[in-house]
Amino acid sequence: MADQRTIEALRRALSRLPGVGPRSAQRMAFHLLERDREGARLIIDTLERALSDVGHCSRCNNFSESEVCEICSSARRDAGLLCVVESPADLEAMEKAGFYQGMYFVLMGRISPLDGVSLDELGVAQLRILLDSGVVQEVILATNLTVEGEATAHALTELLRGRGITVSRLAQGVPAGGELEYLDGVTLEHALSGRHEL
Amino acid sequence: MADQRTIEALRRALSRLPGVGPRSAQRMAFHLLERDREGARLIIDTLERALSDVGHCSRCNNFSESEVCEICSSARRDAGLLCVVESPADLEAMEKAGFYQGMYFVLMGRISPLDGVSLDELGVAQLRILLDSGVVQEVILATNLTVEGEATAHALTELLRGRGITVSRLAQGVPAGGELEYLDGVTLEHALSGRHEL
Repeated sequence: MADQRTIEALRRALSRLPGVGPRSAQRMAFHLLERDREGARLIIDTLERALSDVGHCSRCNNFSESEVCEICSSARRDAGLLCVVESPADLEAMEKAGFYQGMYFVLMGRISPLDGVSLDELGVAQLRILLDSGVVQEVILATNLTVEGEATAHALTELLRGRGITVSRLAQGVPAGGELEYLDGVTLEHALSGRHEL
Repeated sequence: MADQRTIEALRRALSRLPGVGPRSAQRMAFHLLERDREGARLIIDTLERALSDVGHCSRCNNFSESEVCEICSSARRDAGLLCVVESPADLEAMEKAGFYQGMYFVLMGRISPLDGVSLDELGVAQLRILLDSGVVQEVILATNLTVEGEATAHALTELLRGRGITVSRLAQGVPAGGELEYLDGVTLEHALSGRHEL
């Protein structure tokens, strides 16, 4: 139908969102047009503002609206400690936990041969510059404990070798509140081999 | 973090989309900003255009970019036959099947006591005007076979009574390719009680 062209274009645009197929995109388009035009307006405005204002911190590579983000410009944080995470969501989780006082580097992704993402795509050049400054004494590899996260940590270890920097990885084991009955074998194996004396 | 305010606003805006919780909204925001700024631009533009150009057909109440939509202004369709559907998606499904030659009326919803939607919210005033024109001879109630769709069909039957218009409802039974083994009892009951002699 010729007079459905605009809705069709909207549907196709919305289906570019991750996890949104053609049917949900249609439902979203209908919902916004029929029930929530105010929400549609809000999406337009916030997206517009984000596109123009949000860039990357020149130090840690996280999203930032300023040249250097708040964490990186804080004088109260330990610049000798650098925690490398995959995404801004991971950084947020660490910050929410509230105990970490060092700096971050956000890769904005992980090595993924299937999607053609190698280490070079992950802002590693920027990481090198950060390390060349000589301030960082320990790098904590806090990529996810998934296959891709592990591969990324492994590749970063190679990259960090020979710089005289301590490189560490997150401990693996039973999570808080975890019940052995429901844990997978790999986790149990790590928990057992990493046991410590009391 | 103060310099995450714009992303936070975008995340909240995206979570107004149906079926999108805070975590998917965050994933969408990160995806658009990091990997698909072109897609973000496209969403802004198409949504903007849809908001300004898409209204409702003054006859059938479907989304339309013109005062009267293409189907309603077609001379080749049977104006005596009116098929009442819940949503534009239902109308599209009928059109795709390709055998129906009558007109439509799109309720843009269904009766839903839980969401506080009664018949009056469903563009029924416009439906009345359409019927008052005297052209429609049969109304086919093609709301969904769900509890809410059935309630809507029931309420519409009341509304149409005494107008000298034939009112019909979609046949219920075994769908094409349906296997009895996997059908629910209600469907089987309808298929059995609606059996026809060969």
